[in-house]
Amino acid sequence: MRKNSKDSIVEAAVFLFNTKGFSGTSIRDIAAKAGVNPANIAYYFQNKKGLLEYCFTAYFENYLSELEKGYLLLEEEGAELALKKIVENLLNYQSKNIQLTRFILREMTLDSQMVREVMSTYHVKERYYLKKVLEKGMRTKEFRNHSVLYVILQFKSLLNTPFLNIHYVNEVLHILPHEKYFIEKYSREVFAWIDSVLCEPKSIPARRIVSI
Amino acid sequence: MRKNSKDSIVEAAVFLFNTKGFSGTSIRDIAAKAGVNPANIAYYFQNKKGLLEYCFTAYFENYLSELEKGYLLLEEEGAELALKKIVENLLNYQSKNIQLTRFILREMTLDSQMVREVMSTYHVKERYYLKKVLEKGMRTKEFRNHSVLYVILQFKSLLNTPFLNIHYVNEVLHILPHEKYFIEKYSREVFAWIDSVLCEPKSIPARRIVSI
Repeated sequence: MRKNSKDSIVEAAVFLFNTKGFSGTSIRDIAAKAGVNPANIAYYFQNKKGLLEYCFTAYFENYLSELEKGYLLLEEEGAELALKKIVENLLNYQSKNIQLTRFILREMTLDSQMVREVMSTYHVKERYYLKKVLEKGMRTKEFRNHSVLYVILQFKSLLNTPFLNIHYVNEVLHILPHEKYFIEKYSREVFAWIDSVLCEPKSIPARRIVSI
Repeated sequence: MRKNSKDSIVEAAVFLFNTKGFSGTSIRDIAAKAGVNPANIAYYFQNKKGLLEYCFTAYFENYLSELEKGYLLLEEEGAELALKKIVENLLNYQSKNIQLTRFILREMTLDSQMVREVMSTYHVKERYYLKKVLEKGMRTKEFRNHSVLYVILQFKSLLNTPFLNIHYVNEVLHILPHEKYFIEKYSREVFAWIDSVLCEPKSIPARRIVSI
């Protein structure tokens, strides 16, 4: 089935930004790759900067809505479950949008006006949700006491690196973050981090008491 | 004390690459910033590509030599101690060379010929050392059984992210990875990851047995 031309333009643009860089890509290149008339791009996005802004907004709106779905479990299900749902949702979202994710995460390492704007809106919002979850978990003794911001740093490290460093991950570690199998396996790894580093030790299983 | 002009050139180049990008920086810019004659740059590095190669080589040679210093403890001191020494050395090295580190880590997210060459030499060597440490730790039961490559992925995530995402880390998390305080605190966080996720649980302290 033919995608609509707006989606085709975004897909073509992200592919070219990832291979030729943002500065190295022209509207003409994008139009040719997407199989549309350059005037279409102007119609939807005005110019290349407009297209870039659209990519950022689309990425972070969806990213935050995935995060919120996990956050909404906080009251009823508790902090550990909410955080694990957030991990699952964000890994899934990033894996399904692997090209866009890689491009956005790479752009976010720059020091530009747009990056500063994104940080002061979306990243501050993300920090707010994660802080709420972590603080509630510490209050209810699900989590040990921790420096919240250092936990967020580790959380972001674990969740972003496979997608930002996709070539390294593919070629040196032979791990394929676009495959469904990856999400299942890697979620378990991040869950193990939550269980072991964040959570208070669970009651000790009987067999371990016997072995003392 | 005046630095020698080769070091000044590299420092100026890295500063400009980080602010204006590699393509956006000319030899003339670098010469002006370093306060040297452009002919000096040609003398030491031939051209901009030569300068880029020099940055990569200098970074990874020193990075690996810090890693090796930890690796050498493996036989005598065991896997846990060797791995912790590696963490400490690499965090220190990256923090002391924060501008160069950020530039190299950002370049490594590209898919270029030079990145592929670096991966197939330095990253493969790094993987070799880390694999040795992890496999020995699992053999001696210091570490639990784990998928080695997934552990390396998490290890690299935790060690690189503060330096690659320095703006985010500074401005959203208010953490300052160039400060000595950061290394002390963050080493402890990564040690906690090693202790809780990698290591077999240590013998259970008496007070915990009493509380059962």
